[in-house]
Amino acid sequence: MSAKVGVIMGSKSDWDTMKLACDVLDELEIPYEKKVVSAHRTPDLMFQYAETAQQRGLKVIIAGAGGAAHLPGMVASKTILPVIGVPVKSSSLSGLDSLLSIVQMPGGIPVATVAIGNAGGTNAGLLAAQMLGAFDPEVQERVEARREAIKQQVLESSETL
Amino acid sequence: MSAKVGVIMGSKSDWDTMKLACDVLDELEIPYEKKVVSAHRTPDLMFQYAETAQQRGLKVIIAGAGGAAHLPGMVASKTILPVIGVPVKSSSLSGLDSLLSIVQMPGGIPVATVAIGNAGGTNAGLLAAQMLGAFDPEVQERVEARREAIKQQVLESSETL
Amino acid sequence: MSAKVGVIMGSKSDWDTMKLACDVLDELEIPYEKKVVSAHRTPDLMFQYAETAQQRGLKVIIAGAGGAAHLPGMVASKTILPVIGVPVKSSSLSGLDSLLSIVQMPGGIPVATVAIGNAGGTNAGLLAAQMLGAFDPEVQERVEARREAIKQQVLESSETL
Amino acid sequence: MSAKVGVIMGSKSDWDTMKLACDVLDELEIPYEKKVVSAHRTPDLMFQYAETAQQRGLKVIIAGAGGAAHLPGMVASKTILPVIGVPVKSSSLSGLDSLLSIVQMPGGIPVATVAIGNAGGTNAGLLAAQMLGAFDPEVQERVEARREAIKQQVLESSETL
Amino acid sequence: MSAKVGVIMGSKSDWDTMKLACDVLDELEIPYEKKVVSAHRTPDLMFQYAETAQQRGLKVIIAGAGGAAHLPGMVASKTILPVIGVPVKSSSLSGLDSLLSIVQMPGGIPVATVAIGNAGGTNAGLLAAQMLGAFDPEVQERVEARREAIKQQVLESSETL
Amino acid sequence: MSAKVGVIMGSKSDWDTMKLACDVLDELEIPYEKKVVSAHRTPDLMFQYAETAQQRGLKVIIAGAGGAAHLPGMVASKTILPVIGVPVKSSSLSGLDSLLSIVQMPGGIPVATVAIGNAGGTNAGLLAAQMLGAFDPEVQERVEARREAIKQQVLESSETL
Amino acid sequence: MSAKVGVIMGSKSDWDTMKLACDVLDELEIPYEKKVVSAHRTPDLMFQYAETAQQRGLKVIIAGAGGAAHLPGMVASKTILPVIGVPVKSSSLSGLDSLLSIVQMPGGIPVATVAIGNAGGTNAGLLAAQMLGAFDPEVQERVEARREAIKQQVLESSETL
Amino acid sequence: MSAKVGVIMGSKSDWDTMKLACDVLDELEIPYEKKVVSAHRTPDLMFQYAETAQQRGLKVIIAGAGGAAHLPGMVASKTILPVIGVPVKSSSLSGLDSLLSIVQMPGGIPVATVAIGNAGGTNAGLLAAQMLGAFDPEVQERVEARREAIKQQVLESSETL
Repeated sequence: MSAKVGVIMGSKSDWDTMKLACDVLDELEIPYEKKVVSAHRTPDLMFQYAETAQQRGLKVIIAGAGGAAHLPGMVASKTILPVIGVPVKSSSLSGLDSLLSIVQMPGGIPVATVAIGNAGGTNAGLLAAQMLGAFDPEVQERVEARREAIKQQVLESSETL
Repeated sequence: MSAKVGVIMGSKSDWDTMKLACDVLDELEIPYEKKVVSAHRTPDLMFQYAETAQQRGLKVIIAGAGGAAHLPGMVASKTILPVIGVPVKSSSLSGLDSLLSIVQMPGGIPVATVAIGNAGGTNAGLLAAQMLGAFDPEVQERVEARREAIKQQVLESSETL
Repeated sequence: MSAKVGVIMGSKSDWDTMKLACDVLDELEIPYEKKVVSAHRTPDLMFQYAETAQQRGLKVIIAGAGGAAHLPGMVASKTILPVIGVPVKSSSLSGLDSLLSIVQMPGGIPVATVAIGNAGGTNAGLLAAQMLGAFDPEVQERVEARREAIKQQVLESSETL
Repeated sequence: MSAKVGVIMGSKSDWDTMKLACDVLDELEIPYEKKVVSAHRTPDLMFQYAETAQQRGLKVIIAGAGGAAHLPGMVASKTILPVIGVPVKSSSLSGLDSLLSIVQMPGGIPVATVAIGNAGGTNAGLLAAQMLGAFDPEVQERVEARREAIKQQVLESSETL
Repeated sequence: MSAKVGVIMGSKSDWDTMKLACDVLDELEIPYEKKVVSAHRTPDLMFQYAETAQQRGLKVIIAGAGGAAHLPGMVASKTILPVIGVPVKSSSLSGLDSLLSIVQMPGGIPVATVAIGNAGGTNAGLLAAQMLGAFDPEVQERVEARREAIKQQVLESSETL
Repeated sequence: MSAKVGVIMGSKSDWDTMKLACDVLDELEIPYEKKVVSAHRTPDLMFQYAETAQQRGLKVIIAGAGGAAHLPGMVASKTILPVIGVPVKSSSLSGLDSLLSIVQMPGGIPVATVAIGNAGGTNAGLLAAQMLGAFDPEVQERVEARREAIKQQVLESSETL
Repeated sequence: MSAKVGVIMGSKSDWDTMKLACDVLDELEIPYEKKVVSAHRTPDLMFQYAETAQQRGLKVIIAGAGGAAHLPGMVASKTILPVIGVPVKSSSLSGLDSLLSIVQMPGGIPVATVAIGNAGGTNAGLLAAQMLGAFDPEVQERVEARREAIKQQVLESSETL
Repeated sequence: MSAKVGVIMGSKSDWDTMKLACDVLDELEIPYEKKVVSAHRTPDLMFQYAETAQQRGLKVIIAGAGGAAHLPGMVASKTILPVIGVPVKSSSLSGLDSLLSIVQMPGGIPVATVAIGNAGGTNAGLLAAQMLGAFDPEVQERVEARREAIKQQVLESSETL
């Protein structure tokens, strides 16, 4: 089945965080593709990736980057698909720079920003699933089942304090 | 036609920002509903709103709040629909508190966060439209037409420097 | 004897910090209950916990959470009891996000916020004890005795510089 | 009837914020006293105020200050009563300095910190009322009635969007 | 004489700041061109502008932008010329977001970042002049003369305290 | 010879930083005393220490503390001697809280604040020496000799790059 | 009588803040000199000023600057006298940049930093007076009298709440 | 061949970061000199270095420093050459202090600031090369070849996810 979600990242070093998005998509049986696409080091590839995303059948793009994290916003400017931005934790400012570079987009081109670091990686996968799920009851059911399972884990964890 | 997008805000004082989301939805002919729902002052209404959102036909919820902005995240915890969070500019910390309270969600429950203040209001409307547009070519075309119009404005503005 | 203080936390990973509150309550012989209650993963349990807290005889609730820390504020919105919020140190922003999400509550629903991390854990237990102590001379005496003991430790530590 | 709450502030310029705490106490019919007590300009008065607070019948102290806001923490170190700290908005750092100076107390001496500025002023009054209310059903009922009234205001405000 | 410096900005609203760079270039008799080029609203124009900059004879590009300020970094990724980035003061975070988005570039693609706001506008013009001046003694002399004049202003201002 | 400088700290855990101040005073042969004095845990001792400092012959006090660092400012409010404040690095906010709590004193009571952490420890010793040196040529000469020695170290270190 | 204190500032626009230091010195009858000395625009004058300060009879220097505020630290590197740094409130970052540029000096060269803005201006004058007062009983008495007067103002202000 | 670039740093401890600038210059065959020059500990050497830089044939200076990082700005005030500032990561504030001290220069004296830490070290070397390359086609070609090589690395890294 062709990919519904594109998962891209500015550097291979972002993979630890972005793998968590892929793990969620695997778990929820949502087909996706993954790629390193750097806004600054491969700008033409980035534009080409964004321009062709919709016609290749993608419904949403997840883009992770750190520091002056331009990848999500630039991809968003070149596609009509919704783009989810993951602020990867950076070495000096702990991802505050990544967060502000991704979320503070000017009126006109939104990026759906999630939390800094690993929580953001996981939530990017879930947010993509929820966007698809609004139009696909099967995906929506799987997201709900995942939530129910996590709820049970929380309840059980309380017994072990 | 029944509402596809729910626009809620924690206080009537958030309306100046949230009206910009509604303006975009009006412009793109996307049916929506709007309401003041306070996480802290009307918590039961908030839960009821979130619980019934999907069955009422909504596909996405836009929630704006300032300060300890709990509305977007709590609504997200009670619905399977994607939730867009708008950090309203706050009086003492200029919306940095709103932003962190909305975006730093734990793994499991995402909120699609946009920029602080007015840019975020406009972009919340556009992001909702792009989510719908991924499954509705007419909406998608209207978003593209809006982008093209704005591009022309930028080009023309350059002549007047 | 029935619990006077409810100690809750958003995740079992908050236990290291919240255990310090429980240690103080144990030391001061104040009966308490403890539980994992997640605002985002078990929202209904949270509301039920908060709604029944007063009739179960609790006099104060201590709630710890990290990141977009909604637990203290949402519990506060659903109970008339005073709620103490403990900002747990978060991985990317060191608890600054937790602090702002907890303390910046809108007018109408207060949360009694203490320091980020371990100092906050200990102080949440002491603050609960002081609230009870204002109406219970025995508890108050035990708090005073604890302060006196710590004062002696400070004085002695000076000898070892 | 003798004062149950002491409202103090570091400077008369804090009165705009601290008046909101007094307004709540007036509204809820809780007797209180109010005074300017500066940690840095009247340190002996501050110590004397704190030392005698309990024997004068106070049950809780509300202390507001801005900048290097030492008043709440120093009063807390000299009384066994619970102390609520209000970070007054400061001119250069918008109250972030006030907040950190008040909330980051070391383990041993807690301060129950509320929001920066006016929301904090109002909430300090409410938090004091809730502390008293846990042991005084009449006060508790008045707090609940106030919450109910505010809830109605929120619901009605939604009609006017 | 053909332009040596290209002055671009993400929005016409940045002109107040960027005009200061142009004023310096006028004063120092350095030929330049100016244009509104938006990273997010006119991405193709931006790439085309950057790609052709060198062959059109430019020696340095000055790019100003605010918020998620991607223009300087993206232009830098598409040209071999040095790019000076001016963080325009933003409405909610006072340009801290602009600064971090511009300066925190990953290893490989530098942006020569100057101060937030008006000081940055002026200094971008001067920095461009100093880069040119290192290879053009006439420009260098004019920069030195300007410094000398400003030094005299400082000395005279001291008389009027 | 009687102590000219008083070195105090809020907790024994501040000793690593404050020892650096003592090392400088030892090196410059300036007599000093050292003590743990906690603003919050030994407030009366703190007041007594500050009140008697001048008559005991001290000329300057160095006070180090972390978090809600009230010690330097409160000592300053109780003595006419100049007080140097050292913001000790804190566990969650890296000393930014300590710095703001110490430096943002209201008009009327100054604290001479130095850098966060170890650089501040060393510089507190030097600043005290320079204050004394302004009235004691021998001390001043020793400070100058120390500077000269450090200058030589810098020059030599350049050879080893 | 020859000046004991040198008051310098990086720009005439700093005068509003620095005048407050001069006002205190006037009030306490401490002779001083004042001058605009810019680290960046008159670096040679700055070095000359610092180098000759001690032999001209100054005992302490007060230096105010904003933004990348290098004046206090550079003067400190060129004189053996104690230097007080006043972080002037800056237009974009409200003086946080000024504060960090002044206070975060490396081990070896201290700057006695006071609060951002007007409180810092006043306190710089007082700190200089306290340094002199440690060796001049008349100055010390005048500082004490000023404190006493301010204490009375605080006490009286409490009557007018 | 005589040095075209001067690489200086405030302390030998900055070498790990600054070595990365030197590595790039080596790689691109650009002759350079390197030296420890401390603004605060060797101020006269710093002035002398800056004053003679141009006549010694340098075309651009790279200056790295941490904390109250005055070196880049002070060198810039004493030379007409463009100065690149590298904010070295500091121990307590992770280089945010270094960044603000370097970038927030007043109008009149620019510093071309790059990213905090290692990315900044590498990019300082590249920025210097691009400045030279604007007037030296051979250097420019080598920079382009380096970019092309890095692009290939990114493309290949994508295969290994």
